[in-house]
Amino acid sequence: MRLRLDIAYDGSDFRGWAKQPGLRTVQGVLEDALGKILGSPVAIVVAGRTDAGVHASGQVAHIDLDEAQQARVLSRRANDQRDPVGRLADKLRGVLGPYSDVDVRAVTEAPAGFDARFSAVWRRYEYRLADDVSGYDVFERNRTTLVRGTHDLDRMNDAASRLIGLHDFAAYCKPREEATTIRTLIEYEWRRDAAGTLIAHLRADAFCHSMVRALVGACAAVGTGRLEPQDVVTLRDAGARTSAFPVLVARGLTLAEVGYPADELLAARAEQTRARREL
Amino acid sequence: MRLRLDIAYDGSDFRGWAKQPGLRTVQGVLEDALGKILGSPVAIVVAGRTDAGVHASGQVAHIDLDEAQQARVLSRRANDQRDPVGRLADKLRGVLGPYSDVDVRAVTEAPAGFDARFSAVWRRYEYRLADDVSGYDVFERNRTTLVRGTHDLDRMNDAASRLIGLHDFAAYCKPREEATTIRTLIEYEWRRDAAGTLIAHLRADAFCHSMVRALVGACAAVGTGRLEPQDVVTLRDAGARTSAFPVLVARGLTLAEVGYPADELLAARAEQTRARREL
Repeated sequence: MRLRLDIAYDGSDFRGWAKQPGLRTVQGVLEDALGKILGSPVAIVVAGRTDAGVHASGQVAHIDLDEAQQARVLSRRANDQRDPVGRLADKLRGVLGPYSDVDVRAVTEAPAGFDARFSAVWRRYEYRLADDVSGYDVFERNRTTLVRGTHDLDRMNDAASRLIGLHDFAAYCKPREEATTIRTLIEYEWRRDAAGTLIAHLRADAFCHSMVRALVGACAAVGTGRLEPQDVVTLRDAGARTSAFPVLVARGLTLAEVGYPADELLAARAEQTRARREL
Repeated sequence: MRLRLDIAYDGSDFRGWAKQPGLRTVQGVLEDALGKILGSPVAIVVAGRTDAGVHASGQVAHIDLDEAQQARVLSRRANDQRDPVGRLADKLRGVLGPYSDVDVRAVTEAPAGFDARFSAVWRRYEYRLADDVSGYDVFERNRTTLVRGTHDLDRMNDAASRLIGLHDFAAYCKPREEATTIRTLIEYEWRRDAAGTLIAHLRADAFCHSMVRALVGACAAVGTGRLEPQDVVTLRDAGARTSAFPVLVARGLTLAEVGYPADELLAARAEQTRARREL
């Protein structure tokens, strides 16, 4: 039995998603909590492995239950009319304690063929940036990056729109051996919210390591006049990392949503992704 | 020279507004920072002395500068075209450091007769309460109180509207010797925001100690069916503190705004308030 977990966390006090011995990570905290409830260890597979300090409002993961774990989850029925799988979210909240910085918002039985990582067709991120126009909001300080100066929204969107499409984003990625840096950037747009905070919306089939933070850093540099809109394309096509713009810090970054195809396409999509990764 | 300070803080890591030896308080942190900038100590007078854990998005305070301090503030002009008083907010941000949990949003020269405490004609508070309907939001956890159950918004507003007006709120106040508990509750309304979080809006000429937290506790008890709407009036008229409803915790409470009359009425209002307090 495979379960889908919808997860949110404030990344400020985590050393990222991935389990690391002796460090507080989201995966570590959740696997510990699940292990207590299920009576034995379980491994979580996640859609987006976020770095230290990165937040998530729409992270997705899955776990596979063995027979004993499944029996334990389903056995609790008794006179309880509530969905025993859905109640796992409440139990997790009980173990994690009130006002926890990580929350499993929903637990559901995964449809056939679902794989949180390989079935995903896109990831959507948001980046919050406060400048001299928006001012400083103490209540949003843990998920907003402060950058001095006045940012020109139109210039930033001019640059952002030029980056959309299927490209080699090596100039915007921290390189990993034998990993492609070719990605499809589906959407990239900046807006100012009611408080004046600049919010970038980015969607791609997948992002390479540090890619979102490089893409927002490049457009922020265009916003303050350090770069021209066309430069973000020239730099991309040069194909090498550059110091022409800063890679912005993790603080402002949130994984907002993960997209999956219709249920009947989940398995095919997972096959396709795995095959491509192996090329 | 009297300056007006508009202040915001996340109260989570403060032991309230008022200075206390050895404890981190908002007044203590701000007076230290101002003392560094002004070169000598200064005392802050505040509109609303908030308790430990209470937040503020619209706190107001004033300070009086002696001649040396005033010269220091104004002397910085040089070729700088910027308003030297307004620049104090930037200097405070510099001393408090980036991503501080307290921020002075604006510093302005106070109009004649202005007294942050005694000229105020009303204070507005908000209280954020998440129940089973709204769910849990990790990003708002430091300023939202979790209360189990489903709260009926209409019943809560029925109760809230019955409390409005000039009354003795002794049943909703932590008593203080020789202090009146007669207040005018100008506005009290509950709404659900887009995420489903219940938000109480309360406005009064002034609030007694713990009065907002008692008023929201009473209406929350009506919302879950523990009390009937009419009970909040019966309890108020009984005039004694009661255990019929809980006084909710500070976490969900934010001082949102302080109201002042037109400039020409500031001094008269301050006189009037002082006279009434002395009765």
